[in-house]
Amino acid sequence: MDKTIGQEFMEKTKYQYLEESDQQKGLPQPSLELEYAKDGTLIDLPKAEDIEVKPLDLREAIESRKSLRKYADKPLTIEELSYLLWCTQGVKTITSRPSTLRNVPSAGARHSFETYLLINMVDGMKPGLYRYLAIEHKLLEINTEHDIANKMSKSCLDQIFVKNSAVTFMWTTIIYRMKWRYGERGYRYIHLDAGHVCQNLYLAAQSIDCGVCAIAAFDDDEINNLLGLDGEEQFVVYIGTVGKKIE
Amino acid sequence: MDKTIGQEFMEKTKYQYLEESDQQKGLPQPSLELEYAKDGTLIDLPKAEDIEVKPLDLREAIESRKSLRKYADKPLTIEELSYLLWCTQGVKTITSRPSTLRNVPSAGARHSFETYLLINMVDGMKPGLYRYLAIEHKLLEINTEHDIANKMSKSCLDQIFVKNSAVTFMWTTIIYRMKWRYGERGYRYIHLDAGHVCQNLYLAAQSIDCGVCAIAAFDDDEINNLLGLDGEEQFVVYIGTVGKKIE
Repeated sequence: MDKTIGQEFMEKTKYQYLEESDQQKGLPQPSLELEYAKDGTLIDLPKAEDIEVKPLDLREAIESRKSLRKYADKPLTIEELSYLLWCTQGVKTITSRPSTLRNVPSAGARHSFETYLLINMVDGMKPGLYRYLAIEHKLLEINTEHDIANKMSKSCLDQIFVKNSAVTFMWTTIIYRMKWRYGERGYRYIHLDAGHVCQNLYLAAQSIDCGVCAIAAFDDDEINNLLGLDGEEQFVVYIGTVGKKIE
Repeated sequence: MDKTIGQEFMEKTKYQYLEESDQQKGLPQPSLELEYAKDGTLIDLPKAEDIEVKPLDLREAIESRKSLRKYADKPLTIEELSYLLWCTQGVKTITSRPSTLRNVPSAGARHSFETYLLINMVDGMKPGLYRYLAIEHKLLEINTEHDIANKMSKSCLDQIFVKNSAVTFMWTTIIYRMKWRYGERGYRYIHLDAGHVCQNLYLAAQSIDCGVCAIAAFDDDEINNLLGLDGEEQFVVYIGTVGKKIE
């Protein structure tokens, strides 16, 4: 019987079928971060070391986690948002390789993600689409047209909690950062990596009285278009909505 | 230009190409757990509520996590092993759907994983290969031939910390549990799910003075053979080694 596309993918990404990687060929490593217009609108985020969150025991965080799809009509503070970005993609060190060491593990420290945010309710921030500059720990404004939340929600197959969330995290991959080293097997790794990231979001959100719902069901073309991504070199891998718990 | 296998996989698992799923066709849901021989050797695990671990603040756990590939020559206790299994795949509830709710999220609560363990050093346990029965919270002995650790290490492309770990977790998927509902897109989801699980292993291990290293580079055929899996209906998705930190 013919293999399905999933079976074929798992088969062809076995080591015996992988071609020499660009790293093995001696090609230069791609940059650690996507470029951005230096005259863009940048928003400073409070530094991790200046943010206080209340203590939460790890075991309690793990055991009490559950997906939350209904949120209180309450904003996050910019400190809280900064904390979530720090826990999910925050850069601790840039090594001499160079590579980034972050608060999540990544295959071979490739860290292929660029985080996009749909901000609906964050104190002092204009609602809209932003990109997290992990190395700078800043936000870059992308699109603040008023209808973006509706469009985003629709691209997530009408899961309306996207629109009702305070913030929705969208993890996009720059796939070449992973493929440069791992070739086609890298398509497995970006998903494994996104799972690490999302789990940290689930856990960290609980420290600030928030809940999360992971979303992997979305219209790839539609959401990539909304984010201005080509869908092949850079595309959305995983999504997580965040909002305050209803008391 | 022709698409690579990774590009094709991402393309063909877009919603517009997915066929009607077996769930949509009204076919019965697969079982929540793989069957096992009732006359097999079962090992009781201490119940989660009876296990005490020292408190660890979530933020500290996230910020201090790093991959560890060298371990102290010290065993884990069975309580510690039980705690790690609980945090990574422990079943909290069986709902009426039926589905399991666990200490990790899974797409549509499909929870496609069966956890296998290579046990090298756990107090009172014969070294060898075991399977975790998540619903029963017990271990099932699979293979205790003396050479299994060497073979497993070899199948992980000679990453010798597999052999030197106290325990190595191997998350295998019963892919139909995911495909029944999500079709071919399920191959994305098993990887996302494995990332959640592995991140919890990283974090929980720190509560018991252990370190972890995730492994996604392995010889699929070799490791699936060692575990007695067919490699298509059930196969290894991700691996994590665990051992005591060197003081």
